[in-house]
Amino acid sequence: MWLWSATEDRALNVLLIILILLVVTRAFGELAERARMPALVGELVAGIILGFLLQTFQHLTPSIWFAANSEIFDGLAELGMFFLMLLVGIRMEPLDFARSSKSAVLIAVGGMVLPMCIGFVFGQVVLPESDLKNAQSLFLGVALAITAVPVAVRIFMDLGALESRVAKVVIAAALWDDVISLFLMALLLATIGSQAAGTFSVDTMLPVVGNVLLFFAITIPVGLYVFPQIIRWFRHLSFPEVEFSMMLIAALAYAVLAEALGLHQIIGAFMAGMFFHPNVVEQHVYDRVEQQMSGITRGFLAPIFFVSVGFHLDFSAVAQAPVFVIVLTVLALISKLVGSGVPARWAGFSKRDSLVVGIGMSGRGAVELVIAGVALEAGLFLQPDPPGAIVGSLFSAIVIMAIVTTVATPIALRFLWRR
Amino acid sequence: MWLWSATEDRALNVLLIILILLVVTRAFGELAERARMPALVGELVAGIILGFLLQTFQHLTPSIWFAANSEIFDGLAELGMFFLMLLVGIRMEPLDFARSSKSAVLIAVGGMVLPMCIGFVFGQVVLPESDLKNAQSLFLGVALAITAVPVAVRIFMDLGALESRVAKVVIAAALWDDVISLFLMALLLATIGSQAAGTFSVDTMLPVVGNVLLFFAITIPVGLYVFPQIIRWFRHLSFPEVEFSMMLIAALAYAVLAEALGLHQIIGAFMAGMFFHPNVVEQHVYDRVEQQMSGITRGFLAPIFFVSVGFHLDFSAVAQAPVFVIVLTVLALISKLVGSGVPARWAGFSKRDSLVVGIGMSGRGAVELVIAGVALEAGLFLQPDPPGAIVGSLFSAIVIMAIVTTVATPIALRFLWRR
Repeated sequence: MWLWSATEDRALNVLLIILILLVVTRAFGELAERARMPALVGELVAGIILGFLLQTFQHLTPSIWFAANSEIFDGLAELGMFFLMLLVGIRMEPLDFARSSKSAVLIAVGGMVLPMCIGFVFGQVVLPESDLKNAQSLFLGVALAITAVPVAVRIFMDLGALESRVAKVVIAAALWDDVISLFLMALLLATIGSQAAGTFSVDTMLPVVGNVLLFFAITIPVGLYVFPQIIRWFRHLSFPEVEFSMMLIAALAYAVLAEALGLHQIIGAFMAGMFFHPNVVEQHVYDRVEQQMSGITRGFLAPIFFVSVGFHLDFSAVAQAPVFVIVLTVLALISKLVGSGVPARWAGFSKRDSLVVGIGMSGRGAVELVIAGVALEAGLFLQPDPPGAIVGSLFSAIVIMAIVTTVATPIALRFLWRR
Repeated sequence: MWLWSATEDRALNVLLIILILLVVTRAFGELAERARMPALVGELVAGIILGFLLQTFQHLTPSIWFAANSEIFDGLAELGMFFLMLLVGIRMEPLDFARSSKSAVLIAVGGMVLPMCIGFVFGQVVLPESDLKNAQSLFLGVALAITAVPVAVRIFMDLGALESRVAKVVIAAALWDDVISLFLMALLLATIGSQAAGTFSVDTMLPVVGNVLLFFAITIPVGLYVFPQIIRWFRHLSFPEVEFSMMLIAALAYAVLAEALGLHQIIGAFMAGMFFHPNVVEQHVYDRVEQQMSGITRGFLAPIFFVSVGFHLDFSAVAQAPVFVIVLTVLALISKLVGSGVPARWAGFSKRDSLVVGIGMSGRGAVELVIAGVALEAGLFLQPDPPGAIVGSLFSAIVIMAIVTTVATPIALRFLWRR
């Protein structure tokens, strides 16, 4: 067909690939929602299928294939990460932390530390020797430690149990985990950044940790004390879309600082979003900005990002290390189950409720994918050279683990809840 | 300073340039608003100044200069055009046309045809011979014929006279002009597209006109009859941000069709937006999507696009053809004044009110800049080679004309209104 021919029209190809991606991802997102899964699962699967089809039939549609691998598409996926993390930050309300119970903190810490340690040790045992081995192990630890707040919120909402004690404790613990994982992420990204040097010793890690601490030492006080001052000043401004622009400027400024300190921009975007919440702005301003950010992110850029993650999933790599992928996924489920279920039992929850807590904390979601994407982009999976079966499948293994945990969580919880 | 050094960190540079652009444009936008001008005027001026500074000091900040000329920045400006035209379309309510009076139509046609003819003839007289001469003349005609609805609305709002008869007739006429200019734009863009062939005869123009008619023959019935069906189906969908996504998908589909027919994507985006209005969707859905589109467009992408237009303004080119620039600007003002003022007088408006109509129709605004940007990008100003003083200054002349008419309109109207 003429539309598919190897036309010279670059704009047409870019528009066409975005159109195809958006239509297909949204259709799969819809299917996922109907199966009572987060849309994100469908969008990932859409990316995997489209990536497979495009790769297989690239000789039939060379221009489409080229557009899908262009800098513009990469740029949109990168923009998607930025807006996704900003939105996650905006939706997080710091005051909720103050209200969360001691048992929530206990569950959060347990559900973070155990997977983190298991992931790191697992990496040390199975990964081949290379300059990046420690960074790769740290990555495995962080990947196992992450919990998705929106997945947890959504499942309990579906069950009509959002107001139950167990739902509240899971959501509060997941929030804490997000904040702790922010710090771990920062550490990981700074480590990846400094791995160009190729060593991983106390000497090289000290400046990395110093940069991470410096980042928080600047962004936290500025967020707490300077943001509200600037926000108060908004009402004197009259250019169009003041609030959206100012939120974006804050996120860009934090992202630039993060990059300048060797961290990744996503940490800056997330952090800036966290300090924009209904306690410092009027509710209608918050609602408006949240709605605008949600539109462009969840309606456009996030699906494009998820699909780009799916594009990079490599089944042939997975086929070479199937045991590794399975063990990783099982570890991801068990470490969260034990890590947060046992503290829940200590805190006085019944056996069933402790199980609900342990399962509820297992969903990985979007932040997991962002970190995997950043690690891929930074070249974390390129050493040793050749990488071998396990390192070669590391990215795909993490994505599969994220899909499985995010799919398994609602199914298991629904099953438990009914009994 | 370390932040400004020629660092290898590409992400840092891209984020930094976006941050700088956004901060500076919004500051200038604010200044413009305080001077009771549209923010767009300030944002253009910011682009001109920043472009001048970056070019002058490029050896001091080579990496920033590089980032400002990167494909990512071009991509954002292109995305800005797309969203800008989509938003203009969304904000246009087709039913307003049915309500507009005969005198509005008369004023619209006069205010369109006269500038169009004057622009084309002026081009034929002053432009040097080349394969692109007719397309360049057509461009001048379209550039003179455009009227900015938002500029007109805003000025009468500032004067507290939005409900006056003269304001209503100006806004209705400006709406008609937007739709007629949509057709002229399509014709111009298809012409530019086909100018690769290098000729401009009946033989080459027939398929161009055929493509334009085919585009409208497809998009109008689909917009009128298929869109409402699809919109009714929305409530059965449950993936996140259904409405925003579906609006974007429609706009992308129309944009792909436009590109496939040799028109520019902006025509597709504009046209898709026009069929999304409160008569086919529930008011709260319309409001939500309009707000989301406005956030990302006016709060982020449009300022980036305006600044990129400012970047391309070339003072040395203007200095070589100052008389051309001045005559063009005077023609832009007079042709609108006479073209719509005289029909207003015929329609029974007083002398003063006819003058208000003629001036109110003069603001050019964002659509003008989009068309100038598209023409620049398509290489319309590259022939003859060397282009000579007039063709070399054509782009800058149109931008200056747009700034002057948009600045002059509110000042003149305020002056007239007070008397």
